[in-house]
Amino acid sequence: MTTKNTTDTVTESTLFISSDNLLNTWLGHRRLTRRVIEAFPEDKLFNYSIGGMRTFSEMMKEIIDIGGPGIRGIATDNWENTGSLDKHTLNPEDSTKEGLLRLLDEGTAEIMEYWPQISEERFQEMTTVFGQYEGQVFSSILYFIDNEIHHRAQGTVYLRGLGIEPPAFWNRD
Amino acid sequence: MTTKNTTDTVTESTLFISSDNLLNTWLGHRRLTRRVIEAFPEDKLFNYSIGGMRTFSEMMKEIIDIGGPGIRGIATDNWENTGSLDKHTLNPEDSTKEGLLRLLDEGTAEIMEYWPQISEERFQEMTTVFGQYEGQVFSSILYFIDNEIHHRAQGTVYLRGLGIEPPAFWNRD
Repeated sequence: MTTKNTTDTVTESTLFISSDNLLNTWLGHRRLTRRVIEAFPEDKLFNYSIGGMRTFSEMMKEIIDIGGPGIRGIATDNWENTGSLDKHTLNPEDSTKEGLLRLLDEGTAEIMEYWPQISEERFQEMTTVFGQYEGQVFSSILYFIDNEIHHRAQGTVYLRGLGIEPPAFWNRD
Repeated sequence: MTTKNTTDTVTESTLFISSDNLLNTWLGHRRLTRRVIEAFPEDKLFNYSIGGMRTFSEMMKEIIDIGGPGIRGIATDNWENTGSLDKHTLNPEDSTKEGLLRLLDEGTAEIMEYWPQISEERFQEMTTVFGQYEGQVFSSILYFIDNEIHHRAQGTVYLRGLGIEPPAFWNRD
């Protein structure tokens, strides 16, 4: 695993980040995502938007639908019951700030449960996630995380539009 | 480098992504960032904002100040002439869409120049970037990229606020 490079040029197998450290990075993002949801006034999660975009609760439902089910699918290679990524509708009983936070936490727990089952070889394999998106596993997972950062950032503009200071981007505790 | 795990549990050194693949992921993000800048009407880059936030050109100057100089600093362990991260002011001669895109491209070229000099061991080392932020190198680099995704996403809300459809998030070509 730690074969030294004898030249000053990296090779294709040069480790950038380990599985453990990438998971920890993601969990830090999840803590920040949770704080951004918490910062919204409850009604604004469901009825505020800018420029015809979706509400922040709809964006966060997408993040919830991708993270836990995506890692479970990758770990088990079983994509039944992971849903599709075409629509992201909250059930009426989940349509509160508390409900949204609970779903996010359940997704985070699913990520933590299935992550340790993904091997180094699996991270590099080609796969098709959610039955439709082909790519190497690491690339799909980075897409999940990048998509979370992307929509969370959009939420921070909503917060500013509402006159609320967003949680600090650098704080992942 | 490819020691197999004999259990189904990952270890601390399990490779998630290689250096080459992480660089390619970042370069894909850079292409998207470039398209988001291009999508702005020239004047709106410098005079439009929501909720008292910075203009998109100011956010992008931050991204420019971090990416190239950050990778150069990490590769050489020399942080002279990389500037500080306290302010991000465009020179008058760079204060056009063309100037901003040129600076972004110069930063991308610097990332590509210095990246191959960073070894696997260096990616895992503790370091202090820009003379003030301590952490492991991989963590600092992911912060650079995540910060680019974050501010670019804020720019997509600006575009929507201006009635302009942003470039597709999934397209990194």
